[in-house]
Amino acid sequence: MKLHNYFRSSASFRVRIALNLKGLDFDYIPVHIARGDHRTGPFSAISADMLVPMLEDEGERFSQSMAIIEYLDETHPEPALLPSDPVGRAHVRALAQSIACEIHPLNNLRVLKYLVKELKLDDAAKNAWYRHWVREGLLSFERQLAQHPGGTYCWGDTPTLADCCLVPQIFNGRRFDCDFTGLPRTMAAFDACMKLDAFQRAQPSQAPDAEA
Amino acid sequence: MKLHNYFRSSASFRVRIALNLKGLDFDYIPVHIARGDHRTGPFSAISADMLVPMLEDEGERFSQSMAIIEYLDETHPEPALLPSDPVGRAHVRALAQSIACEIHPLNNLRVLKYLVKELKLDDAAKNAWYRHWVREGLLSFERQLAQHPGGTYCWGDTPTLADCCLVPQIFNGRRFDCDFTGLPRTMAAFDACMKLDAFQRAQPSQAPDAEA
Repeated sequence: MKLHNYFRSSASFRVRIALNLKGLDFDYIPVHIARGDHRTGPFSAISADMLVPMLEDEGERFSQSMAIIEYLDETHPEPALLPSDPVGRAHVRALAQSIACEIHPLNNLRVLKYLVKELKLDDAAKNAWYRHWVREGLLSFERQLAQHPGGTYCWGDTPTLADCCLVPQIFNGRRFDCDFTGLPRTMAAFDACMKLDAFQRAQPSQAPDAEA
Repeated sequence: MKLHNYFRSSASFRVRIALNLKGLDFDYIPVHIARGDHRTGPFSAISADMLVPMLEDEGERFSQSMAIIEYLDETHPEPALLPSDPVGRAHVRALAQSIACEIHPLNNLRVLKYLVKELKLDDAAKNAWYRHWVREGLLSFERQLAQHPGGTYCWGDTPTLADCCLVPQIFNGRRFDCDFTGLPRTMAAFDACMKLDAFQRAQPSQAPDAEA
């Protein structure tokens, strides 16, 4: 298995967590997104969407982090990253999508570049944008967690796809000094995840292409 | 089954298509998003994320359109909206997420409001933003379709989750006069979908809360 990846990419981080939780070995192939290597380098010749992460497995190329994690869960079922019942699966997928569709797309690198280059935002306005969507999104995430019975992680007592999405979002938010107050369930799930080796080893600072 | 919905919401439209493809009856409960009823009305009291669509079924409340569609596919398997093999499922989910995570989040109503109210963009700059992300996203979508063997729809010869996401995105793009040239596979899939009654009946103009 080959994982095309960038240490700081949240979506890449999600897949690293899932691979670690499953105990799967993989070759790490760095793609320097901040330098634009996804659009000009050899990666652009093999990736249709020119986005990381991309997973190569069994002669196929897979993109989109949530789709990759579901693929890993179907092909390597233990430990399961989704509940066994349709209701639980729907809620876990919704939690993951609350981050992957409502927060992260607004704050990824190409959007921040557009804000600066095309809209001429200064740093303060760019950071306000960033923090606004993280804060709104996490408050919504917290309300969703509060609707469901308690558990150690986002859903129950084992990490799921939802935790694979939450943890990179918190890391990202910390880089931009976001406000995490008033999020007891969310931050408890984050803290529980970070006690696990699979999450620790997946963090950006531990990636082969990590920069200071 | 109750579907909380707004005629013009792309994510709502996705779920209407899936329900129609499955031949499922549902009560349509309108939530006037443009007027802000999702944040102040009775909907806000029962919805944790205050987003449409929300599906009520079997005493549970489900949010996030892709999660809802997967739930419907698991609980009402025929006709299937995802392929039967893990590789096919991964590719269909990735196509759906290419729209739901890469295009639509940048162009939904609350983002456009932020551009106008907080960033003081004029109409031209707002429309340029909108068209930029639709264009970039659909060019990427087209490259992804081109990598896979041909079919009537986005994936193979029956509509899938990917088509449920594509069609509302094209409708949305048309409202903002986006450029759809050079997208042969994408537009062929769209046209094939629109020949089906399930897609026709789901379109915004046919919704009970449609406005001119």
